Amino acid sequence: MSWTTPRRAFIGAATAEGGTKLNAFDNALLKLGIGNVNLVKLSSVIPAHIEWIDRVHDVPTGMLLPTVYAHIESDEPGMTISAALGVGISENNEGGLIYEYSGYCTREEAEEMVRRMVEEGFAVRGWKLAEFKVASASVTVREKPAAAIAAVVMFPY
Amino acid sequence: MSWTTPRRAFIGAATAEGGTKLNAFDNALLKLGIGNVNLVKLSSVIPAHIEWIDRVHDVPTGMLLPTVYAHIESDEPGMTISAALGVGISENNEGGLIYEYSGYCTREEAEEMVRRMVEEGFAVRGWKLAEFKVASASVTVREKPAAAIAAVVMFPY
Amino acid sequence: MSWTTPRRAFIGAATAEGGTKLNAFDNALLKLGIGNVNLVKLSSVIPAHIEWIDRVHDVPTGMLLPTVYAHIESDEPGMTISAALGVGISENNEGGLIYEYSGYCTREEAEEMVRRMVEEGFAVRGWKLAEFKVASASVTVREKPAAAIAAVVMFPY
Repeated sequence: MSWTTPRRAFIGAATAEGGTKLNAFDNALLKLGIGNVNLVKLSSVIPAHIEWIDRVHDVPTGMLLPTVYAHIESDEPGMTISAALGVGISENNEGGLIYEYSGYCTREEAEEMVRRMVEEGFAVRGWKLAEFKVASASVTVREKPAAAIAAVVMFPY
Repeated sequence: MSWTTPRRAFIGAATAEGGTKLNAFDNALLKLGIGNVNLVKLSSVIPAHIEWIDRVHDVPTGMLLPTVYAHIESDEPGMTISAALGVGISENNEGGLIYEYSGYCTREEAEEMVRRMVEEGFAVRGWKLAEFKVASASVTVREKPAAAIAAVVMFPY
Repeated sequence: MSWTTPRRAFIGAATAEGGTKLNAFDNALLKLGIGNVNLVKLSSVIPAHIEWIDRVHDVPTGMLLPTVYAHIESDEPGMTISAALGVGISENNEGGLIYEYSGYCTREEAEEMVRRMVEEGFAVRGWKLAEFKVASASVTVREKPAAAIAAVVMFPY
């Protein structure tokens, strides 16, 4: 177990409505399976040799998990909000980079933004982009407050 | 000792003035007994079997403590600012939820907001609300910048 | 090794341009030697007996490092942005305080702000200011988005 250099990671995105913006955010976390843990926000680097998992397995309620996330909430009916994370993985899984974007825009625009940011991040480091992952979510607000979130959650084991 | 799943928690709220907004925030932390530690901001879940303590005992200067906090600062004389945290505890202390609110509003409005959010959070999870705690603080700005903060600080032991 | 009470710290500041505001921020982190780690944002206290180091030595890609940082990004050509951290160290290195400031201002203004905040923080605690460090960076935006960042990065060993 290593809190300081995570071993596994999960990537996902979701939208949800709620009675308030914070509840909408909370409901989106629940959809991702991370509503009952404590997210500790990180800037955005993937440790070497990370193993990607398909879903968040049972973790203790209230466990602290390092997380990179992009999110946006709105209570303005008719507006479209989107959140995206772009993840670039280097050759031989020697590390990676995560860039986030959220705003009043389409899902495609958010995805395009994170793709550009990942490409620039790899270029300035002289790293070769072996794999690109994207997680994005978009929702048009109706009567209730809504949230869009994209997250990479990291696990110490 | 467990950094990743805290054992004890303290809840409190305070207001303070200061020479700048950041000093006002700092002075409010000092009143809560957490001005000389490092707060690591969390999203907002209470681990199972947490033990609540009445005050922050001596902790090493600069220790990292996972903390959920709501805060607001203002330097606009005459304005009232409030911060509140609502904490719901589930049956048998199997875990809990914390929701935060801060804004240009009364203390009662901030408390009502967090109460509603806790109730919705429990309802969507199908959890039964065994206990509700609230910490709130409100201040009307005078000549100096002022801050209102509500915090739940968690301890690894 | 102690995640919860860091042993060593690095202070620095940098500016950079990038294709987006987030890439500009990322490029400034790279200049500081902390572009390939995960910053965990802290409120702002220096543990006792911290040892200051002159540069960030090799740390594993993606390692979580507690960091206090001030930053600002802008894509408005002609505007000057600045970020500063002021660090006060108490007598006998028994602990210290970090205050942050960033804004559309000159470097001198940002430095003056953090100096005032450090002095007030020491005064309200009744601590004697044995040493004052400042890290600041300023840039005038040209065609590309730019970032200014000042950071204190802490190490568990």
